Amino acid sequence: MRIAFLGPHGTFCEQALRSVIDDLPDAAPEPAASTTAALDALRAGEADLACVPIESSVEGAVPATMDGLVESPPVVVVREILLPVRFGVLVRPGTAIADVRTVASHPHGEAQTRRWLAAHLPGAEVRMTPSTAAAAAAVADGQVDAAVCAPVAARYYGLDVLADGVHDTGDAVTRFVLVARAGSGLPAPTGADRTSIAATTVNEPGALLAILTEFAIRGVDLTRIESRPSKARLGTYWFFLDGAGHVAEAAMGEALAALHRRCTDLRFLGSYPRATVPDGSTAPSPPVAPPVPGQSAADYDDAAAWLRALRAAPDPGVR
Amino acid sequence: MRIAFLGPHGTFCEQALRSVIDDLPDAAPEPAASTTAALDALRAGEADLACVPIESSVEGAVPATMDGLVESPPVVVVREILLPVRFGVLVRPGTAIADVRTVASHPHGEAQTRRWLAAHLPGAEVRMTPSTAAAAAAVADGQVDAAVCAPVAARYYGLDVLADGVHDTGDAVTRFVLVARAGSGLPAPTGADRTSIAATTVNEPGALLAILTEFAIRGVDLTRIESRPSKARLGTYWFFLDGAGHVAEAAMGEALAALHRRCTDLRFLGSYPRATVPDGSTAPSPPVAPPVPGQSAADYDDAAAWLRALRAAPDPGVR
Repeated sequence: MRIAFLGPHGTFCEQALRSVIDDLPDAAPEPAASTTAALDALRAGEADLACVPIESSVEGAVPATMDGLVESPPVVVVREILLPVRFGVLVRPGTAIADVRTVASHPHGEAQTRRWLAAHLPGAEVRMTPSTAAAAAAVADGQVDAAVCAPVAARYYGLDVLADGVHDTGDAVTRFVLVARAGSGLPAPTGADRTSIAATTVNEPGALLAILTEFAIRGVDLTRIESRPSKARLGTYWFFLDGAGHVAEAAMGEALAALHRRCTDLRFLGSYPRATVPDGSTAPSPPVAPPVPGQSAADYDDAAAWLRALRAAPDPGVR
Repeated sequence: MRIAFLGPHGTFCEQALRSVIDDLPDAAPEPAASTTAALDALRAGEADLACVPIESSVEGAVPATMDGLVESPPVVVVREILLPVRFGVLVRPGTAIADVRTVASHPHGEAQTRRWLAAHLPGAEVRMTPSTAAAAAAVADGQVDAAVCAPVAARYYGLDVLADGVHDTGDAVTRFVLVARAGSGLPAPTGADRTSIAATTVNEPGALLAILTEFAIRGVDLTRIESRPSKARLGTYWFFLDGAGHVAEAAMGEALAALHRRCTDLRFLGSYPRATVPDGSTAPSPPVAPPVPGQSAADYDDAAAWLRALRAAPDPGVR
């Protein structure tokens, strides 16, 4: 099973993928040049799954992933992975901190270590690379003196860890998703799932409100809402929504069917188990809202049985 | 009046600021190293206004600006500026396209010209710079061969425009905002204004819905919603909302007061005239929703007068 991930080797994305690889039989991870390239490989059938970052607790949404998810042909998320993020400063063996004139990182890496860099490498020029691992590769090649990246990259590129745990905000977590081509099946409901969609709607007051209402009146907790420009016109957006529940469940199914009636465009982006932060990290898992009284799966079953009984009553013959 | 803008000289941000400079008496534009630095200068009293990008019709929100707006002490947007974005490829005089081995741009510039670069400079290495103008400066310094930036940068850096209009998506528009320290006054209502807020709320189903409802039931059109991580925990967010209207108007005022009662944290980020795309551009202005019947300012006045009359009725003396 070929799995395209945001490469090169040594990225946080590879680290996230490897954290679940025991669950993926015959997994063959293959680095892709970008999240777009990973999703393109999936769509082209050159990979069976793609592993890409979608959201960071510090830097927010990853726009390239969100834009890539709504392209055609359709794809669906089949698993999410939460990775506590820990940054190191990697250098060629023998380099001292006083020797560091240039430092490279992905913009998210730079953003999460800005205060450390200002305090410890105030004179160093900061260069941006397409991934944190590309920064490590640039150090190995001698193009820059130091990389801010996953400490695991040290062994791929023959580097030393000059400093570890250099992130400004403790307990940062990045959320990655495993993506499959649509039509290749859905993970079974576990009772603690998440469903992702993207929707567009008409431009009138209350249009987004109506979408959120379809979830709220059915007791579905929305765990995330993001907007991305439609690219057609400033002020027009795709709304990306994550809700607690599985498309196979009554409440989520009813809500999605209502959106199908209501939205100008609707993409189902998958139902998959909600992940928690792995044991051993002090980072908190995403919050889970309490259930809404009267909106549980059992309540839906009761109500459906009651409705069936009403409808099954014999014709009284009164005309 | 010192105005800190996202520098260096020759950025789209400077171009946006200069497009309205006739309205700003004694304006002294001063380049800042980043949007964060521009807002810091404003907060420190080293500038009277800051001009920063907030949203692109192609690349979406500018996270650093949004994060900067909710820091302390409070600041407010006093004007928005829409700038149709046009990219050029700038080189040192005498450079031919076949000579271009390296090309630099801001990540948003690279993202908006990716297809052109792949078609016309397929072998060139692309480097990221903190601004498009920094890319032009890097060309002038001889560090790279070409910059993808505002054509206006050519005159600041003594460069030639090798190609113009190289953006992949036509009619891209970037929205900039002029920001002032809170307490320095609000622009008067014009009848076509926008109000910006940021809010946090409790984590329970329907909490965001309740916020949107406070706007919708008062006929306030929400023109934008974005979320940014709270940085405390994955799955917790600041919601940034723009609505049509002015805080001085009854409907918007009532809605904001309701949010003050309802939200765990609420920041007023300004009321200011809604901008349109300047004449001469083919880019569409952001859409404006039709008014909701019964929710106009006159309707609010009528209803308030009716309520006042009820309350002013003399005590009938019935005990």
